[in-house]
Amino acid sequence: MRLREAARAVAAAALGPGTGPRLSGGGGGRAPMAKSKFEYVRHFEADDTCLPNCWVVTRLDGRNFHRFAEQHGFSKPNDDRALHLMTKCAQTVMQELEDIVMAYGQSDEYSFVFKKKSNWFKRRASKFMTHVVSQFASSYVFYWKDYFKDQPLLYPPGFDGRVVLYPSNQNLKDYLSWRQADCHINNLYNTVFWMLVQRSGLTPVQAQDRLQVNEVTTKRIKLPKETEEKEVEVTRTRTKTVPLHCDIIGDQFWEEYPEILADS
Amino acid sequence: MRLREAARAVAAAALGPGTGPRLSGGGGGRAPMAKSKFEYVRHFEADDTCLPNCWVVTRLDGRNFHRFAEQHGFSKPNDDRALHLMTKCAQTVMQELEDIVMAYGQSDEYSFVFKKKSNWFKRRASKFMTHVVSQFASSYVFYWKDYFKDQPLLYPPGFDGRVVLYPSNQNLKDYLSWRQADCHINNLYNTVFWMLVQRSGLTPVQAQDRLQVNEVTTKRIKLPKETEEKEVEVTRTRTKTVPLHCDIIGDQFWEEYPEILADS
Amino acid sequence: MRLREAARAVAAAALGPGTGPRLSGGGGGRAPMAKSKFEYVRHFEADDTCLPNCWVVTRLDGRNFHRFAEQHGFSKPNDDRALHLMTKCAQTVMQELEDIVMAYGQSDEYSFVFKKKSNWFKRRASKFMTHVVSQFASSYVFYWKDYFKDQPLLYPPGFDGRVVLYPSNQNLKDYLSWRQADCHINNLYNTVFWMLVQRSGLTPVQAQDRLQVNEVTTKRIKLPKETEEKEVEVTRTRTKTVPLHCDIIGDQFWEEYPEILADS
Amino acid sequence: MRLREAARAVAAAALGPGTGPRLSGGGGGRAPMAKSKFEYVRHFEADDTCLPNCWVVTRLDGRNFHRFAEQHGFSKPNDDRALHLMTKCAQTVMQELEDIVMAYGQSDEYSFVFKKKSNWFKRRASKFMTHVVSQFASSYVFYWKDYFKDQPLLYPPGFDGRVVLYPSNQNLKDYLSWRQADCHINNLYNTVFWMLVQRSGLTPVQAQDRLQVNEVTTKRIKLPKETEEKEVEVTRTRTKTVPLHCDIIGDQFWEEYPEILADS
Repeated sequence: MRLREAARAVAAAALGPGTGPRLSGGGGGRAPMAKSKFEYVRHFEADDTCLPNCWVVTRLDGRNFHRFAEQHGFSKPNDDRALHLMTKCAQTVMQELEDIVMAYGQSDEYSFVFKKKSNWFKRRASKFMTHVVSQFASSYVFYWKDYFKDQPLLYPPGFDGRVVLYPSNQNLKDYLSWRQADCHINNLYNTVFWMLVQRSGLTPVQAQDRLQVNEVTTKRIKLPKETEEKEVEVTRTRTKTVPLHCDIIGDQFWEEYPEILADS
Repeated sequence: MRLREAARAVAAAALGPGTGPRLSGGGGGRAPMAKSKFEYVRHFEADDTCLPNCWVVTRLDGRNFHRFAEQHGFSKPNDDRALHLMTKCAQTVMQELEDIVMAYGQSDEYSFVFKKKSNWFKRRASKFMTHVVSQFASSYVFYWKDYFKDQPLLYPPGFDGRVVLYPSNQNLKDYLSWRQADCHINNLYNTVFWMLVQRSGLTPVQAQDRLQVNEVTTKRIKLPKETEEKEVEVTRTRTKTVPLHCDIIGDQFWEEYPEILADS
Repeated sequence: MRLREAARAVAAAALGPGTGPRLSGGGGGRAPMAKSKFEYVRHFEADDTCLPNCWVVTRLDGRNFHRFAEQHGFSKPNDDRALHLMTKCAQTVMQELEDIVMAYGQSDEYSFVFKKKSNWFKRRASKFMTHVVSQFASSYVFYWKDYFKDQPLLYPPGFDGRVVLYPSNQNLKDYLSWRQADCHINNLYNTVFWMLVQRSGLTPVQAQDRLQVNEVTTKRIKLPKETEEKEVEVTRTRTKTVPLHCDIIGDQFWEEYPEILADS
Repeated sequence: MRLREAARAVAAAALGPGTGPRLSGGGGGRAPMAKSKFEYVRHFEADDTCLPNCWVVTRLDGRNFHRFAEQHGFSKPNDDRALHLMTKCAQTVMQELEDIVMAYGQSDEYSFVFKKKSNWFKRRASKFMTHVVSQFASSYVFYWKDYFKDQPLLYPPGFDGRVVLYPSNQNLKDYLSWRQADCHINNLYNTVFWMLVQRSGLTPVQAQDRLQVNEVTTKRIKLPKETEEKEVEVTRTRTKTVPLHCDIIGDQFWEEYPEILADS
């Protein structure tokens, strides 16, 4: 009843030709835009256009993935199924969204690089980050069973995201090197940590204390080769996306794939 | 091999105690933070703190949901399953995230209102919008089967999001009224459009032309009551979230639920 | 010679009707806008529109005014000439610029309050702050001789400025109270400091040490009444600006001048 | 009386050691920072840090300089005194402020280029623009008499300013070329316009109509050489600032002064 009145109130409002008719998810036509007295609120939306001629990097991180990993019995220190699912999601993001030239991920984070000249959604930061994280999150649930088979997903996971601009090619390379260096450090630490727990019989607290006492330890232990090389994931695109496992800190990667920076 | 070298390079970098150790999704300990020469790139991240003492509204919209609705055979003009799934996702968002006092949705969009005094993630706009859209998107896939039963989800959907600030209670009410007025206009239009197509035998183009010619038409046709009241979805929270179907343009809603604005 | 060539290059560029012809400071007509290949650089300018329905406060501060005060022999702890010149500049700013409802100053700082609904220069933050500081700075030199008579101004002073938004009337009042409380604290301190130096014969370092040792001292000394009341400056406008000397922390000021907040 | 009470209220407020004692313009010591209940308003100030590794350009424009030029009898189309005063002000800005590598001006506008790596005031945009315009404005009044001799300055002029970021050297060069191309177009137009008025006896409206009818006209008229070369002003700095009059659109300027871009 109250709704009926509201509908009348709306019907009584001046209806203009409108400039941006709303697409109804369930409808098939285009409604005229209501020019109501409420419409002034549109002007409270701030412009968040990214500075032109800069690399636009969107990085996402899993929300509470420490807990998520435990609840889903991820193997330590690295769970192949989880890593491959992350990469599958990243590939989906790259196929669905425009202008992404490269992605790099580790653990529960992934970075996407939009090309310098991208004018996708007029370079609005909110568009970049929300499209990336929502596509990634829905893909995570959608493709879960392809990697975890019968093990059920207990609840829908969340991710946060951010946009950072890098003006020069060197800044972009350094960003990616920063993430990969972080990845290596984490891998070194986690590998040793879990060796102490799983093979040497220390409790997690003891293992942590040991590693706090002497950080140099992390450099002396011989790492099992397979673990290291499993962790790093790099994907890139031109006509299709290809998952790679390689170093991106040195020059070789950039020399092999010059088209990634070609836009600049 | 290249990776081995990179790991060495990283190991050679000065390792400090670090201020924000990286949580490894698959690990159990905390690695020291790598203080590498790449770390300067952190300072390229811009601050996007929301102005204090303002309502923070995050609105999301389905990406290409016109196509999505057709591919999944949504009934016209409104598909109950889709609407209820949207509301289920909104409830999940409200339960998982903090400080949301109210949500309002229609069609393929949903708005979430964070309280004025919220200091969640230090009020960073990127946190608000990416947490909301990613949780919503993963929930959409996760709960799909509860509403669409055996009808499969063909691909993972995307959503975009934005953050808008409203300084006064009146601004917030007007924002919500703007969305509900928009909803009514769309409902009126879509209902008439599909009556012309489904009952009067016009083609979609003919129906659109008819409605363009004479907008007044939309006010003369008697609307089926049930359609109208199905569309509007409002949820609110205190200890639990409750879906409501009511007018939020008039005063009555705000008088019945004074706690929503009580924070101001 | 090189210039001649450049001019030819420019003349050869396509000249369109233009949308915003440049006003030449020394010319009398309107040149067509050059649509050169360089014009893309315009799009690098970011939008800095202030959120609507908020009080826009611009505060300026003298640059290196400690040194400036010493070089121009300002009397301690307060120099009437300097304070009155500041107020004269503030009045000029209020007369020249639009939508300022109130200003408050102390020492070498001044705050200007633009009304909530102001749409001056489309609420661009850069316009607010640069117009205020440039008008203030040019006025400072222009009116210097009216207050300092034969004492010459040794060099042109600088000021910095900033824009801060306050959503509610209470936030605005608290901002102004914060500045006035700061003013009182400084006055108390400086008055005591200079009494210790000028009347008790302490060196500046001794005086500073004394005040650091026991802050309570500042509350026990009887302050000369005239000094205190000289410091505070408040101006407001309707048809003309009026310098006032009064408390703005309590309610009385706001009750006497309700028109200041009437806009909200 | 009211003030006395306020002072007491302030004295009763908790006084902490403070983190940023306020420098009183007229005082000699440092007051402890008042930690009053009002201080929360500080957090409403937004961060406006400029993206690192970009050229920071601050451009200022005279406010209502068309009127200002008429009221002060500027000669047409270019007034040497006014142009030289502008350049003197620009030199003062470059000497007083840090990290400016170059400035370029024409008519009533001036652009200042801060070096890419500048960390002056932590790269806050408001600091860049307000320091530039206030120093320029106070210098304009201060040095007026050196260029206009006995002709009095009738009122203190205003300027607005803005900050724009340019990521690459090419973007910066194109920005400066854009301003110089604009300068040439204006010069061509104004020179012809005033020749039509002063030598051909047309009224300003007739001259404007003539130029609107046939833009090509502007290219056919032989320009007096001296006017053209007077207009362009370029200054640069290393140990001292030097006014130059040269083309900056071509490569020669940048080859002669490589140190300007050396920072990148």
